[in-house]
Parts: sequence; structure tokens; C-alpha cells
Amino acid sequence: MSDPKRLAETCIGALYARDPAARALGIEIRSIRPGEALLAMRVRPDMLNGHGLCHGGLIFAFADTAFAYACNSYNETALAASASVEFLAPARVGDELTAEAKEQVRVRRHGIYDVEVTNQEGTRIAMFRGRSVKVEGTVLGPSGGD
Amino acid sequence: MSDPKRLAETCIGALYARDPAARALGIEIRSIRPGEALLAMRVRPDMLNGHGLCHGGLIFAFADTAFAYACNSYNETALAASASVEFLAPARVGDELTAEAKEQVRVRRHGIYDVEVTNQEGTRIAMFRGRSVKVEGTVLGPSGGD
Amino acid sequence: MSDPKRLAETCIGALYARDPAARALGIEIRSIRPGEALLAMRVRPDMLNGHGLCHGGLIFAFADTAFAYACNSYNETALAASASVEFLAPARVGDELTAEAKEQVRVRRHGIYDVEVTNQEGTRIAMFRGRSVKVEGTVLGPSGGD
Amino acid sequence: MSDPKRLAETCIGALYARDPAARALGIEIRSIRPGEALLAMRVRPDMLNGHGLCHGGLIFAFADTAFAYACNSYNETALAASASVEFLAPARVGDELTAEAKEQVRVRRHGIYDVEVTNQEGTRIAMFRGRSVKVEGTVLGPSGGD
Repeated sequence: MSDPKRLAETCIGALYARDPAARALGIEIRSIRPGEALLAMRVRPDMLNGHGLCHGGLIFAFADTAFAYACNSYNETALAASASVEFLAPARVGDELTAEAKEQVRVRRHGIYDVEVTNQEGTRIAMFRGRSVKVEGTVLGPSGGD
Repeated sequence: MSDPKRLAETCIGALYARDPAARALGIEIRSIRPGEALLAMRVRPDMLNGHGLCHGGLIFAFADTAFAYACNSYNETALAASASVEFLAPARVGDELTAEAKEQVRVRRHGIYDVEVTNQEGTRIAMFRGRSVKVEGTVLGPSGGD
Repeated sequence: MSDPKRLAETCIGALYARDPAARALGIEIRSIRPGEALLAMRVRPDMLNGHGLCHGGLIFAFADTAFAYACNSYNETALAASASVEFLAPARVGDELTAEAKEQVRVRRHGIYDVEVTNQEGTRIAMFRGRSVKVEGTVLGPSGGD
Repeated sequence: MSDPKRLAETCIGALYARDPAARALGIEIRSIRPGEALLAMRVRPDMLNGHGLCHGGLIFAFADTAFAYACNSYNETALAASASVEFLAPARVGDELTAEAKEQVRVRRHGIYDVEVTNQEGTRIAMFRGRSVKVEGTVLGPSGGD
């Protein structure tokens, strides 16, 4: 598979199909490119915290998923080593959130990815920065890169 | 309610009762003290990611919940402003995780809380550091502090 | 002083004039705009660490100075509350570094600023993200805003 | 050199002797153990920023030096990959600061170290968390481990 964009889509399609946590959160893929991912998630009532706002941990989980899909888009298995998040504005029930992950750096075994989470009005909800580390293995498995 | 420990337990009991996200994750409260929270969560099959490991975003959400309960334990509403996490070891299906939040600093409107997530064997899974900011309002509501 | 760019330049000119640490590091101002700062610093032999590379703490100090100048450019005193840095490539003696700070968010009393440090070849040396908090006072003093 | 504490002291003694940046900041070593470092630094007038307080970048540089000495104490060269800092209280001219670095995790090629910076009254000035990565080489050089 020599086309990087098609390889990225195939990898992340396969990863998403076996990602119960992402699907339980209702996360949907909008687009995938090498080193990039654009995802969507709607804030459901069961995602609220005790203040009646979307649980910050789930906003993080949404951003983290975009990060994971961006850094696994080369068919080389990568895991999150660390991440940080800045919460900028609350998300409320019914909000349609978008998470856009962009690769900042990818050298040897490490990568850095920035993710922005925005709502349907374009308000920035959170800024996320993740650091990935490449481990053994491919996303598609032994014969997957054919 | 002049006993700080009892106030903390009452606040977080009330917060937990109206926290659908924490309950959807199966998070349970083990103990609450002023500025501290000890929580438990079991890794379920629907919490796994595409690598077959517990989704890092849900490990964060677990730690973030402990942070939220620690910083709201004074009956003054506090929100997360930012957080960082270091992922140290994977968590697997069936693992019984513990999140222990401890207050590091609490001055004027800001606080810093460290959370450690460990598994049933005592292996450290993640280290989390959160920064809270106090906003208007109380956890128990207008008459709740009585 | 109604022109925001001129106010920013005046504020940061005044701040720089009384900033011995920035001048001891040989930091120079290239340009200032509201919420933005572009600075330069040359790596001197006395800035190296025990590995023969520019001390990471001084790369941070350079980025932190750009952050401080960006967030104080409105003539409202702001301090750093927290920051994170990713070190991407080493800087060596003689390198001409640039730090470019850009405001990401500024709401009520808080701001978030991203800073990129690059060398003379355009290689990214470090990525910095800082969180500011506004305190009492103005940069130019009681009569400085006139 | 089979005694880990003596090896740590020898390594960091050698590293410090060739660390112009640490010595330019007046940093002194109080004690070194495997994975730990205790350093001292006095805030000089040339370390102040435009607000008349110790420059946050230099507080970071002080903490970062303690981190570097802790993670290089095994005679295996390690570099900082990333770090975060929380500024808790200002440091003033004449303050005698202490930075205490403690290893949290050290697995394969990575380590995590926490550093606390306090003043002469025991007030916490900053909390720092650094992530190290091991690279080729030893601190003492080819024959240094003898």
C-alpha cells in the first residue's frame, strides 16, 4: 500500500473497528491523513459530571483518541507516553464536539501531537498536547501492510 | 457542619450522586478527606482501545475524577483548569485500579493535586497532576452548608 | 495611548529595561505586538551544560521570557502560573535562537501562550506552553497608561 | 565502582565540573544519591525579572539541573525530553533556594523525576516534573566506570 493517505485510512479504520472505548463514547471519524485525525463526538447526558458539564476526563479521552489515531496512521504501533490538557470552556449536553489532531514532530521513536477540541460554534473547549512512543508491531498486523 | 472530614464526605457523596460520567465508568468511592480522595475502578471490556489495553483517556478520566473529588471537598465549587498525565504501564481488562488524589497546594482560588493510579499488584499505571480554580457557588447548594 | 501595538512596545520596552535576567542571558527583542513577542538569543559557552549542549533550563528561560513579554503586552501585570516544555533538538554553542510567543487564549484573568524556539536553520529546538494569571497592577505604573 | 552512592557522587561531580551554566547560576551540590539530587542556589540581583522577582525561567533552570543530576547519577547519559513546572510562590533577591529531585520511575530508557524548590523558610516556590530519555554513552566516559 504505497499511498500514505490510503494507508492511514486503512490503519485507523482497522484500529477504530477494534476500539470499544472510542465507540462507547460515540466518537466518529471525520477524516484521517498521515499524522492527522479529525473526529466528532456528541455530549450525551451520561457524559456529564457533578457540575452538570461534560466531564473533563471524557473531553480528554476524546482528544486522546484523536492523538492516538494521528500517531498510529503510519502502520507503526505507537502508544501515549504523556499528555497535557488545558480546559478553556465548558462543554454542555447536546454539544457537537470536534477534535483535530495535528502532528508537530515525529523523529525516530517519538512524536508530539497537538489536538484542539471545539464545539459547534467554533469555541475552543480544550487544547491537548500528547507525546507518543513507537513500540514493536504494526497496526494492521503481520500481513496488514500488503 | 463543622467537622471537615464529615463535610468532605457529604459534599462528595452529593457530587457523586449527580455525576453520571463517574458512575458510567463504574467508579466507586473508597474514602474522602479534605483535599483527598481514594477511588476504585475495574477495567471492563468496553474500556479497551484498539491495542487491547485500557484506553488512556479513561485512565485519565478516572484520575481526573479523583482530582475533582479532592478539590471539591471543601464545599466550594472548583473546576479543572489544566492537567498533565504520565502513562507508566498499561492497564488490562479485569484490572482493579485505584486512584489516590492528594492536595499539594491550595491558595486563594487555585489548587494543585497529584493523583496516582495503581493496579491490584501495586504497579503504578499513571501519574496525574491537576490544577484547579475555584468558581462561584458551593457543592451542596445555598442551604447545603448548614 | 490608544494604539495597542504602540502600547505593547512601550510596556515591553519598559519591562525589558528593568529585567536583569533577560539581559544577562543576552536576550534581544525583535518585535512586540499585543499578545505576541519575537526574541533572539545566542548560545554562549557559559550556557552549556555538562553534556556540552545548551542547558535546557536556559532554553526554557528564553521561551519563558517570550511568554512573559507576550502576556504583559496589554499593560496589565501578568505572572506565569505554570508551563510545560518539550525539548526537540539540542542547541549548540554559537546557535542563534529565536523564540516566538503567540497568544492562544486570553479570558478574564487567565491566558495561554505557545512559544516555539528555533535555531538559525529553522530547526525546532523546543515547544513551550505557558499559563498566565493577571495580578494587581500595570506594567507602566500608575501614570504609565497615559 | 560497585557502590551506587559513590558512583552517583563521582558521576555528578564530573558532570558539575564541566557544567558552566550551573556554575554561572551559582548552583551548589548539597547531596547526591542514585536517582536523587539536593542542590542550593541563592537569588542574586541579576536573576530578577521585570517584576522585581526571581525570573521563573531561572527557577526552572535550577530545578532542571537537579533533575539532570538525578537522572545522570547511574553513569548512563540521560537527557531531558520534556518537563512541566507549577509556580507556587515568588522568590526574592537574597532567598536561599533548595531543589530536591526524586526519582519516581525508571524503566528501560525512560525516567520521571519530581523536583521541589523551596526557600529558606520552607515555603514551596515551584513543583517540577521532568521526563528523561537515556541516550548512548556514559557520564564518566569510556574508562570512567572503572
